[in-house]
Amino acid sequence: MRIRFHRKLDDLKERLLVMAGMAEQAIQRSVEAYRVRDLSLCDLVVRSEISINSFEREIDQMALDLLAMEQPMAIDLRFILAVIKINADLERVGDQAVSISDRVRDLQAFPVVDLPVDIPRMASLASAMVRKALQGFIEADAEMATSVLTMDDQVDKLNDAAFFALSNLIKEQPRFTPQALHALMIARNLERVGDHATNIAEDVIFWVRGADVRHHLST
Amino acid sequence: MRIRFHRKLDDLKERLLVMAGMAEQAIQRSVEAYRVRDLSLCDLVVRSEISINSFEREIDQMALDLLAMEQPMAIDLRFILAVIKINADLERVGDQAVSISDRVRDLQAFPVVDLPVDIPRMASLASAMVRKALQGFIEADAEMATSVLTMDDQVDKLNDAAFFALSNLIKEQPRFTPQALHALMIARNLERVGDHATNIAEDVIFWVRGADVRHHLST
Repeated sequence: MRIRFHRKLDDLKERLLVMAGMAEQAIQRSVEAYRVRDLSLCDLVVRSEISINSFEREIDQMALDLLAMEQPMAIDLRFILAVIKINADLERVGDQAVSISDRVRDLQAFPVVDLPVDIPRMASLASAMVRKALQGFIEADAEMATSVLTMDDQVDKLNDAAFFALSNLIKEQPRFTPQALHALMIARNLERVGDHATNIAEDVIFWVRGADVRHHLST
Repeated sequence: MRIRFHRKLDDLKERLLVMAGMAEQAIQRSVEAYRVRDLSLCDLVVRSEISINSFEREIDQMALDLLAMEQPMAIDLRFILAVIKINADLERVGDQAVSISDRVRDLQAFPVVDLPVDIPRMASLASAMVRKALQGFIEADAEMATSVLTMDDQVDKLNDAAFFALSNLIKEQPRFTPQALHALMIARNLERVGDHATNIAEDVIFWVRGADVRHHLST
């Protein structure tokens, strides 16, 4: 019984990792779509959101079944709760990718201009945060998860810098307003991805340490 | 034993309602701070975030204890899961209020201008969504929760209109760029509050109906 239970916990973990991979890929695709202005990548992102959503439901159901079937011990309970919360955050990472894709579509109406914001760099940092938080989850490594919280400050700083640089550009060259505003919104989407990675990292730390660090390390 | 368990479920629900009230008040205060440019209200919002965060932890712990102590039936399990998810969304509503307060502080550096965006109206709509979703939760009323999903379309439309009107203003009167950008970000924060209310409504429907409507009604 116990062995079967632990096998199911492993299945749940495996499923969540696939979900994480899909969410990360969606972000990469949406930012690649922005970089090369490729609308077929936007289509892929929108289509993958459907899979991500059905994965979310499936994982929640697996977690619910595990909670219903057995009387999990405290550490397993915390693990299942962490999965439920991480799952919700990953689904929202997928939503951010869709928002970015929508912006890329809107941008098609305007000429390409060189903007003072490094979207690909912000994206690779935000993706690295998601990956690292999940790695902390796989290896039950609270230290690794903690390092995500400091990475979040970098993403926030890049986002603040983007806001400053783009609003200056708009003031000086108002004809680029639409492009600059869309880029600003994409930067904001990536900052949100960083926030979700931070949430995931905090859930990992909570599961591993059994103590709640939320709202401590991150402030 | 069963009676004690149900009393604890009621306590959990009660606690979540207090949390919801705090989150809603934080939004109201931050938007009032925007309306009358009152920084003392911003301080209140930041201070209340600390209480909201500690409430979130407390509610999660209560839910965890309930899961650990008893073997809840399927409907109660779904209820506890809904509480955990709603709890996370309410905490993020509080985060949005803090973001709005930060914007209000930044706005102090610039003269007040009349902007083509009705922030108080967006805020009252988003707050009404949160309230209605929670009312659906109290009364186990899936119909009421469903009505939140259509309200979200209105908030999204207001946000799109704000984006359009403010970007036009910036193009025509670039000297108002900072004020317009901050207002744009506040509109976006309120749109996020609407998203959280939608998440809450979907969790309520899931709990009441036992079926997962996420990603169906909302699209």
